[in-house]
Parts: sequence; C-alpha cells; structure tokens
Amino acid sequence: SRPCCIEALLAEAAEPGAPARPCPCPLPSGDTALSRLVRRLLSARRSLDLCLFSFSCPQLARAVQLLHRRGVRVRLVTDAQYMGLHGSQIGRLRHAGIQVRHDQDSGYMHHKFAIVDRRMLITGSLNWTTQAIQSNRENVLVVEDAEYVKAFQEEFERIWEEYNPANYRFFPEKQ
Amino acid sequence: SRPCCIEALLAEAAEPGAPARPCPCPLPSGDTALSRLVRRLLSARRSLDLCLFSFSCPQLARAVQLLHRRGVRVRLVTDAQYMGLHGSQIGRLRHAGIQVRHDQDSGYMHHKFAIVDRRMLITGSLNWTTQAIQSNRENVLVVEDAEYVKAFQEEFERIWEEYNPANYRFFPEKQ
Repeated sequence: SRPCCIEALLAEAAEPGAPARPCPCPLPSGDTALSRLVRRLLSARRSLDLCLFSFSCPQLARAVQLLHRRGVRVRLVTDAQYMGLHGSQIGRLRHAGIQVRHDQDSGYMHHKFAIVDRRMLITGSLNWTTQAIQSNRENVLVVEDAEYVKAFQEEFERIWEEYNPANYRFFPEKQ
Repeated sequence: SRPCCIEALLAEAAEPGAPARPCPCPLPSGDTALSRLVRRLLSARRSLDLCLFSFSCPQLARAVQLLHRRGVRVRLVTDAQYMGLHGSQIGRLRHAGIQVRHDQDSGYMHHKFAIVDRRMLITGSLNWTTQAIQSNRENVLVVEDAEYVKAFQEEFERIWEEYNPANYRFFPEKQ
C-alpha cells in the first residue's frame, strides 16, 4: 500500500474510548492494506505468535509492543541473519521485554506468518518491512479454517522448542 | 526437504505407462516436500499460471517445461531484478517457448504462487530455489477453495496485463 499513517489506529487501541485526536502528519490515514493488517493484529486478546523472516517495519513493531503492554502473550521467532540487519526491529522488541527466538542455521527461517489468539492465521509473501509494504507486489492471506491454523500453530510450537536457547550449539561437536 | 531425485516422477509424467527405469543416482527418491509439490504441478491438464519472485530450481524448471511440451498453457510472471541472477531458470524457460512477463519497477514482484488449471492454488513463503527447498524453513499452502483461488487468479490476470510488453515505458516521461 501507499505510505499511510496508522497513529489513530494505535491510539484507539492504546486507549479505547478516548477522544480521537487526529494526527497532524500529512499522510493519508484511511483504509489501506497496512491498516487492515494492523487491525487484525490489534484484535488479539490473549496471544500473538509471530514467525517472521524479516521484521523492520516500525509501525508493525509499535502495534506488537502495544499488544505486549496490553498483556497479550507475544512470542516471536525470526531469522538469525536478518535480525542483525540495519533497521531490524528485533532489538527494540526484545528490549521491550518480548520473547524472541531465532535459528542457528545457515539456511533461512523464511516463514512470514502470525497467529492471533490461536484462531486466526495471517500468512503470505509479505516480510514485515517498509519496502515490502510500500513498494512490492505481495499477498497476505487471512485464514480462520481450523485445519490451516492448526498446521501453522504446530509448526510454530515445533520451531519455538527447536530454537529454545537451551538447545544452542555453542561448541558444535565434530561429525 | 533433503536433496532428492525426482527423475522417476518426471519420466512417468513424460511417458505415462512406460516401464519404470530406476534412476542410477544415489539420491533418495521417496516422498518429500519437493516431490509432493512436483506431483501437484504435474497434475495440470490445461493451464499453469506462475507468479514467482525467484525461480532457479532446475528440477522445478524441468517439470514446467514438461507441462509446456505436453500442451499445457504455461504463463510465468517474475521479478525483473531476480530473473537476471546467476542460476535463474527464466532464460531457459523462455528459450523453450514459454511466455514470460516481468515488472519494470524498483520494488519486487514478490509473490510466490502457482495456479493449476484455474482450480488449485499453491502459495506460501517458498521461492522456487534449491536453497529454499533444501535449507530454509518454509511453508507451502495448497488451497482449492474457490474464494482464495479466485482472488489469486484475478491478481494474476491483473499483473499479466500490467506487465504486457506493450505497456513498457522505455522512455519514461518526465513528471
């Protein structure tokens, strides 16, 4: 989608019912692909499981932080190589107290999905980067069929355990 | 999935009913994520619409070529920057007579989906590269719900027209 402002959305989620204060920035704040994604995320009440190859979009990071502050249990799995790139939001999310785990492999943790309250799967080609949101041709599927959600939730739990720091191989044994 | 051999699958698709000739290579040829993907593709009877950011896996290129030779109408949309990378299969597929179109944008054509016979959608995080297949953590969804297939088929037709060479801007006009 085109550059847009989601301040109103975030403010409403931070303080439901508070009087709306329109953001003074010049960006449009109507309905966009980004605002629809943020709305879906902000609907989380209990849990948000994130499995994201690349996460550098500050607006999405703010939405995730807001959920964490609101008491939603946020878990985030990401890719070890990409989490260190300039602009990555992973450090900021960790700093805010969000649990993050990552792979230790040369291959990529290339998933890009989120599961809201263990019932809504958001998946597709979209990495959570500003370039992807503003400049690329991308798809995002929102699926609530239990069959699909279950498969992704199981993959998430599998990865979450596999990437448990207790399993780190700091000193790989010889073959 | 682990490295595997799909020669038997391709041979069976090229000459249905011919006596099986086991491939002499040492790779396993059983059921893998790649073989399941190839089986789905080879089920095409009329059309195969491909919208792929990156396509460098030679085995998948052979499956696509085989379908083209069998008379299936193959259309391929890809990303202008990635189609020129070393190992890309796009040149080979064009050389084989397959219609290819690409974007002209600085942003990526980042979709990774295929539609078989306008009824089966194959989509997810997987780029069609050997690294993605063998080394990454990826997901591939196979969906036959008309609602999802229709949305992706419409996006495909939109992109196919948008990337029609007749629309190329060789000499961009000044703003």
